[in-house]
Amino acid sequence: MKTSKGYIRSLDLHKGHVDLSHGGGGRAMAQLIEEIFFAAFANEYLARGNDGAVLPIPSEGGRMVMTTDAHVVSPLFFPGGDIGCLSVHGTVNDLAVMGARPLWLAASFILEEGFPLADLQRIVESMASAARDAGVIIVTGDTKVVERGKGDGVFITTTGVGVVADGILLSGDRAQPGDAILLSGTIGDHGMAIMSKRENLTFDAQIESDTAALNGLVADMLASGADIHVMRDPTRGGLATALNEIAKQSGVGMLLDEASIPVRTVVEAACEFLGFDPLYIANEGKLVAICAAADAERLLAAMCAHPLGHESAIIGTVHSDPHHFVQMKTRFGGHRNVDWLSGEQLPRIC
Amino acid sequence: MKTSKGYIRSLDLHKGHVDLSHGGGGRAMAQLIEEIFFAAFANEYLARGNDGAVLPIPSEGGRMVMTTDAHVVSPLFFPGGDIGCLSVHGTVNDLAVMGARPLWLAASFILEEGFPLADLQRIVESMASAARDAGVIIVTGDTKVVERGKGDGVFITTTGVGVVADGILLSGDRAQPGDAILLSGTIGDHGMAIMSKRENLTFDAQIESDTAALNGLVADMLASGADIHVMRDPTRGGLATALNEIAKQSGVGMLLDEASIPVRTVVEAACEFLGFDPLYIANEGKLVAICAAADAERLLAAMCAHPLGHESAIIGTVHSDPHHFVQMKTRFGGHRNVDWLSGEQLPRIC
Repeated sequence: MKTSKGYIRSLDLHKGHVDLSHGGGGRAMAQLIEEIFFAAFANEYLARGNDGAVLPIPSEGGRMVMTTDAHVVSPLFFPGGDIGCLSVHGTVNDLAVMGARPLWLAASFILEEGFPLADLQRIVESMASAARDAGVIIVTGDTKVVERGKGDGVFITTTGVGVVADGILLSGDRAQPGDAILLSGTIGDHGMAIMSKRENLTFDAQIESDTAALNGLVADMLASGADIHVMRDPTRGGLATALNEIAKQSGVGMLLDEASIPVRTVVEAACEFLGFDPLYIANEGKLVAICAAADAERLLAAMCAHPLGHESAIIGTVHSDPHHFVQMKTRFGGHRNVDWLSGEQLPRIC
Repeated sequence: MKTSKGYIRSLDLHKGHVDLSHGGGGRAMAQLIEEIFFAAFANEYLARGNDGAVLPIPSEGGRMVMTTDAHVVSPLFFPGGDIGCLSVHGTVNDLAVMGARPLWLAASFILEEGFPLADLQRIVESMASAARDAGVIIVTGDTKVVERGKGDGVFITTTGVGVVADGILLSGDRAQPGDAILLSGTIGDHGMAIMSKRENLTFDAQIESDTAALNGLVADMLASGADIHVMRDPTRGGLATALNEIAKQSGVGMLLDEASIPVRTVVEAACEFLGFDPLYIANEGKLVAICAAADAERLLAAMCAHPLGHESAIIGTVHSDPHHFVQMKTRFGGHRNVDWLSGEQLPRIC
């Protein structure tokens, strides 16, 4: 990267590409980190330049929460978002649905040789902006480069640490017979945005991913004082999978009311066209909450008052069932089982 | 995965392969996680089955440290280790050299479709064993699957959290003129083990990776009472890169004594044969420490008393230099600059 005069030339962020030297640990890697990552993520922790970040122990008491997610979504850019903001939202939401206030993120990048630096910069800036909006700091990171054909542009693993206040106890095993099941809005938007982009489909209206950070919504829900037992973000595998997981963990059954589950018309049409069931399609900006029945209306009001929850609905109830079945009253009045999906699912949706 | 009788069949850990459904979020993924990951990592945090782990806030005071590393080493299995134990050691060591006691790891896996389940199990068991030996717990994880040809077997990102006691302040910007530079053993073993496996080279003796967790050695070094200013594990880019980074961060120069830097004969021979300089070759079980000159002998004694430090040596000194050069007195009495490596380096060494 030295010019003929011995100076270091800046990265060519318009036409440059990732090459193997950017992962080698030498000067090229240091330059990539400085000009792309530090430039976007600028904060006191990264600025120290060590292999890790030194952080204060949260002084408010409570417990810590740690979560990690690899992001391999394809395509990298899609209507409503990109792998960058998605990788922040996904991890922030995993912390939030455990009742935690997200504090710090670590980000690791696996880049494919030949990946355009302009795309990398766009992704990194999207991450930085998502982190700012969610109030989390990307405190440490890592970059590796693999040969052309051994990766797919960029994979991002984000790991988050947060703190959950004493008295908040959300866990997938706490759903109880009688509880109400709430959903924060429409389902299937993220997965169908990815699919329609991938398949180059156009519908009357564009389907946009719902990717968003839910920690603000969760804070309002907790502040409502409702007795919330479980929260989960229904990502891979969709609402059906999230509810089956909770039913299994808690040892309960569930009955959903199909008519109350919000689905955008265009998403429903796309699902029908492609042969998918929206119940199994990934979401990246939605959550389900299970709370004491007596608190359901109060919790619903708190959710509806938040911009990311204005289409919230009570979608079902928890009951005792030794088989842990999730069932649904259909729009036509019948009942169907909402089973685990055992076959092929949408790959690389997040 | 249902048999004709409707029972769930166990994974075929001998002949089975990863397929896309293992990353889809449904039953196949749940089974993979249970039969391979939970079976090996078994602990109370994972057992809860949530998307993150709830952890106690360290009660001993101090500060926290967080670090992350993507591991893309190729080949996955090499003399002395594999990507599994490497991914634990790498992150444990990043915590240790910041003076932290490693507590928790998060692990994310990006699997390529078609990857043998037997290899995955072997890797996961190697991680579990490395974590046990190092006294850290793998508290949460994630698995994604990419299509054949979009990954390379398995990539593992490990993120670690540890706690550093009050009074310990290790940072790359604390090297001071007059300080001594210590190294915990031979250099180049890991990188040359990978290279010789990759190139199918055989030498008189097999070169084994030095991959190891250094937190025990670091604990002994801290307990010695020596005034240590900086520690770092010279991984990618080797000793030369680590020292150049520290020289730049601290704004100092360094003078090394080539004769005092331990290199195995077989590693030296392999380097010569392949045209590498051991100073730039990755290590995965070594550290450099920079301490007050008056404490150097005491620190050396503590290092030599530990099994992973018995070949430790004082290899140089820090001095003031506005250019932040790392220089070396060669075996022949001359001086050379040990510069940043700006060109091509060994790809996928860790």
